[in-house]
Amino acid sequence: MEGKEEDVRVGANKFPERQPIGTSAQSDKDYKEPPPAPLFEPGELASWSFWRAGIAEFIATFLFLYITVLTVMGVKRAPNMCASVGIQGIAWAFGGMIFALVYCTAGISGGHINPAVTFGLFLARKLSLTRAVYYIVMQCLGAICGAGVVKGFQPKQYQALGGGANTVAPGYTKGSGLGAEIIGTFVLVYTVFSATDAKRNARDSHVPILAPLPIGFAVFLVHLATIPITGTGINPARSLGAAIIFNKDNAWDDHWVFWVGPFIGAALAALYHVIVIRAIPFKSRS
Amino acid sequence: MEGKEEDVRVGANKFPERQPIGTSAQSDKDYKEPPPAPLFEPGELASWSFWRAGIAEFIATFLFLYITVLTVMGVKRAPNMCASVGIQGIAWAFGGMIFALVYCTAGISGGHINPAVTFGLFLARKLSLTRAVYYIVMQCLGAICGAGVVKGFQPKQYQALGGGANTVAPGYTKGSGLGAEIIGTFVLVYTVFSATDAKRNARDSHVPILAPLPIGFAVFLVHLATIPITGTGINPARSLGAAIIFNKDNAWDDHWVFWVGPFIGAALAALYHVIVIRAIPFKSRS
Amino acid sequence: MEGKEEDVRVGANKFPERQPIGTSAQSDKDYKEPPPAPLFEPGELASWSFWRAGIAEFIATFLFLYITVLTVMGVKRAPNMCASVGIQGIAWAFGGMIFALVYCTAGISGGHINPAVTFGLFLARKLSLTRAVYYIVMQCLGAICGAGVVKGFQPKQYQALGGGANTVAPGYTKGSGLGAEIIGTFVLVYTVFSATDAKRNARDSHVPILAPLPIGFAVFLVHLATIPITGTGINPARSLGAAIIFNKDNAWDDHWVFWVGPFIGAALAALYHVIVIRAIPFKSRS
Amino acid sequence: MEGKEEDVRVGANKFPERQPIGTSAQSDKDYKEPPPAPLFEPGELASWSFWRAGIAEFIATFLFLYITVLTVMGVKRAPNMCASVGIQGIAWAFGGMIFALVYCTAGISGGHINPAVTFGLFLARKLSLTRAVYYIVMQCLGAICGAGVVKGFQPKQYQALGGGANTVAPGYTKGSGLGAEIIGTFVLVYTVFSATDAKRNARDSHVPILAPLPIGFAVFLVHLATIPITGTGINPARSLGAAIIFNKDNAWDDHWVFWVGPFIGAALAALYHVIVIRAIPFKSRS
Repeated sequence: MEGKEEDVRVGANKFPERQPIGTSAQSDKDYKEPPPAPLFEPGELASWSFWRAGIAEFIATFLFLYITVLTVMGVKRAPNMCASVGIQGIAWAFGGMIFALVYCTAGISGGHINPAVTFGLFLARKLSLTRAVYYIVMQCLGAICGAGVVKGFQPKQYQALGGGANTVAPGYTKGSGLGAEIIGTFVLVYTVFSATDAKRNARDSHVPILAPLPIGFAVFLVHLATIPITGTGINPARSLGAAIIFNKDNAWDDHWVFWVGPFIGAALAALYHVIVIRAIPFKSRS
Repeated sequence: MEGKEEDVRVGANKFPERQPIGTSAQSDKDYKEPPPAPLFEPGELASWSFWRAGIAEFIATFLFLYITVLTVMGVKRAPNMCASVGIQGIAWAFGGMIFALVYCTAGISGGHINPAVTFGLFLARKLSLTRAVYYIVMQCLGAICGAGVVKGFQPKQYQALGGGANTVAPGYTKGSGLGAEIIGTFVLVYTVFSATDAKRNARDSHVPILAPLPIGFAVFLVHLATIPITGTGINPARSLGAAIIFNKDNAWDDHWVFWVGPFIGAALAALYHVIVIRAIPFKSRS
Repeated sequence: MEGKEEDVRVGANKFPERQPIGTSAQSDKDYKEPPPAPLFEPGELASWSFWRAGIAEFIATFLFLYITVLTVMGVKRAPNMCASVGIQGIAWAFGGMIFALVYCTAGISGGHINPAVTFGLFLARKLSLTRAVYYIVMQCLGAICGAGVVKGFQPKQYQALGGGANTVAPGYTKGSGLGAEIIGTFVLVYTVFSATDAKRNARDSHVPILAPLPIGFAVFLVHLATIPITGTGINPARSLGAAIIFNKDNAWDDHWVFWVGPFIGAALAALYHVIVIRAIPFKSRS
Repeated sequence: MEGKEEDVRVGANKFPERQPIGTSAQSDKDYKEPPPAPLFEPGELASWSFWRAGIAEFIATFLFLYITVLTVMGVKRAPNMCASVGIQGIAWAFGGMIFALVYCTAGISGGHINPAVTFGLFLARKLSLTRAVYYIVMQCLGAICGAGVVKGFQPKQYQALGGGANTVAPGYTKGSGLGAEIIGTFVLVYTVFSATDAKRNARDSHVPILAPLPIGFAVFLVHLATIPITGTGINPARSLGAAIIFNKDNAWDDHWVFWVGPFIGAALAALYHVIVIRAIPFKSRS
């Protein structure tokens, strides 16, 4: 087992050629794949850690929307962009909050804070359907409350300035917006899978602690690229929270893009991880 | 004990369903909770490490105010925002200093540098009342000195440009300002509790070393969001230091907001950690 | 062996003088240098991990070009720079993507995402020629696809706004542009060598996990400095992808600079690492 | 020994009150202080690792000046600040380069890249006088070459735009400039001492790997605060390199500030570390 693991070891590919190869393609069973999570796990519902996880997701998504939408409002309200933290500051707010919140909640709920992440991990059978649905509901509730508090501070300005709701910008087709959401969510969920890979965990127990940083950066980077196109969703709870509190037609017209896109992107990332990176379907029984 | 710990393990919630659950909700005593700190610990006063800790808090808060208020002055003095590091630069100065200073002082004093953090940790009984009061006094003195040095560089400009003092911005009610301070401090102290969780420490001895990064980011993010509302306090020593050195009526009128808000926010974060995350009141004796 | 290792230990040079020195210059064989990779390793081609590595390089370079060129387009399209993430945001997009993607692919392919990095590691005999050529081909294909998707979103704007293609800016000679590419790539590949040093790995198994951060920062920093000169290549796949999709004369005129420069820079960094840092040619047989 | 160490353990001061205290102030000899480095260590000069360390300092300071001065030029040359990476981008260039370069050279030379750091560590007797002088000479030579290459790209513009040389800005007294350099260097060298503390190293062997991040941030933060005052030196080699290549009167008039200030700041940080944090003079013989 030890010897096989070498074949795909972490590191800058320094001397993989020195190890016995040629057989690993067929087997590659270099670490024990955890069994897939069952769809329903009735025992979960009697566990405090299950309910606590949902509360942690609620609080995290609440804080996520509160800080990020407030930052968006601050930028839009400024007399000119230079007198605010700017578009780049908005990207930092989204990415940075994901970094901090994943760090804080990783040990409690896994730190999803995003229905697309929950959906992707569910597809890869990392959590039960019960838990996935519970998380997504709590995330959406948290997001609505977070955007609601921001609106509570200055209701008129909130409506006047767009409320942080996601729409496809003029000059882009719905298809482009959908594409941007798909690839953007792929970047995020691909990073989540890479950062929480069980093989990595086996070797370096501190990796889950470090994982929040690349995950947060992934969110930051997608915002840098796609704020001009869709305002960047890649998180259906975030889009839903802002849309419900803003509640104007133009926010609802494009709303499906911010559910369909992220879910397709997450599914593609899960597929890529399971088929290419882990090559699970091609493996012999383990 | 080992087996129970699995139920809420750090990691992306990979396969908690595989572990025996259903009983953890009642017990959850998966690691030894340290006993609460006594209110008074007379022995402390005879320890060099106690006095040294206060000196470290003084120096750290001094440097914190010096760098951050100087950055604020630099931005306000610039002919236009673009010719300065901008509002985003101010947010980096506050968050970055907390990152660096928590890193430097974590091993000496715990790296609070903020009376709200000290208050929150005191409520969770992580340090004695003696130590809490001592820290808060030293933090306030350090903050006053730090702002004083900045004023010393250019006294007239300091007064003309607002001196980095916190006030509730026009267009916002005191209530909104108070709310912003409460939630902002909640974000910070919640991150502090998550990052310094004893369970995490037990498993990964390097976590306290990594903890400064999310704590610093939390400060950065709250600044991105609430600089337009209150200038962002979430640190009574920082607000007091700037107010005393600036010493004009408008800085004092709102000053209570920057003590009441952070202390409520820190108390809520301590409650959330103790009741929801650690579930201490519901646990059987351990 | 243990004692000799002290001579050049990681750390702030605290007390190297306390260790026996004076003999280390001649031997310095304090860790076992891995044997150089062979030029051709036929067994590789029968390994799934070999083919998977190329797919991972393709996907990573695809995402790299997609996010970064889209960010460049967003900045160029904005009515003024302040209404966009700005030049600094472009630098973050390039550096941040390298950070996240190296983190994600380090365990799969080594995380090159750049023909210059592959070339430098090949010169230091860290991978076979077969693998080097395969990686470079996959990187170029990924880059072309990534830029192509961006063009697909808004073909006319893409052509009007320069398509993110690298050219030497007016006011600079070709020689200056070439020099900027050489030194910039040196910074990157020097960081790659330092971060993935086998000696470091031997001692601290988590270093490969941390390595992506300085590598990403190196890319960010070179962009801060040389975007005004060449738009910053330091990655022939990135330059080729943008040039092929943009496909105008001025992008092709300077194109050789973005292959010759990075390859010279990578070769110099490999030489510096092998001759000065590792002092391999001067060592006795090990 | 183990028990005593608890008194000042790294961590958020969680339960120091639980440990036996009261005696630690007198002894505090909880880890073996390394003996001070001798002033002259003749054996060093026969060691390849000694000469290699100087070469690494030369290359690192060369790259440091090249990237940072080039970034400064790019900002000054831009038609307006918004069309460049801005003052904040300059601060990132300085801080980020120190992060990356300390990471790369920490294992080779200790990663000083700054005569003030070398001087502070020398005062704390962490390296010999021979080594300190050798490092400072190599740093200054590297800095001169780095600025020289930037001038070589566009000699006329370099002279017209100030060449990145440090001067005290109009509106500030020399005293303020000196004070800014002293406190700024204190922040940097204090972070260096904290990050490379031998006690930390003893417990967590990976700390030296993580140390570059807070050190780089310290440089970034001081730049945010003091670019408007002195352009921020806190590194005599950086100031000397730019001054020699720029070579105009106004760069030389204030030049003493950028040697005296950093050396005083470094000395204060060394004093603070030795007397307060390590309390070496008050300790019983160990």
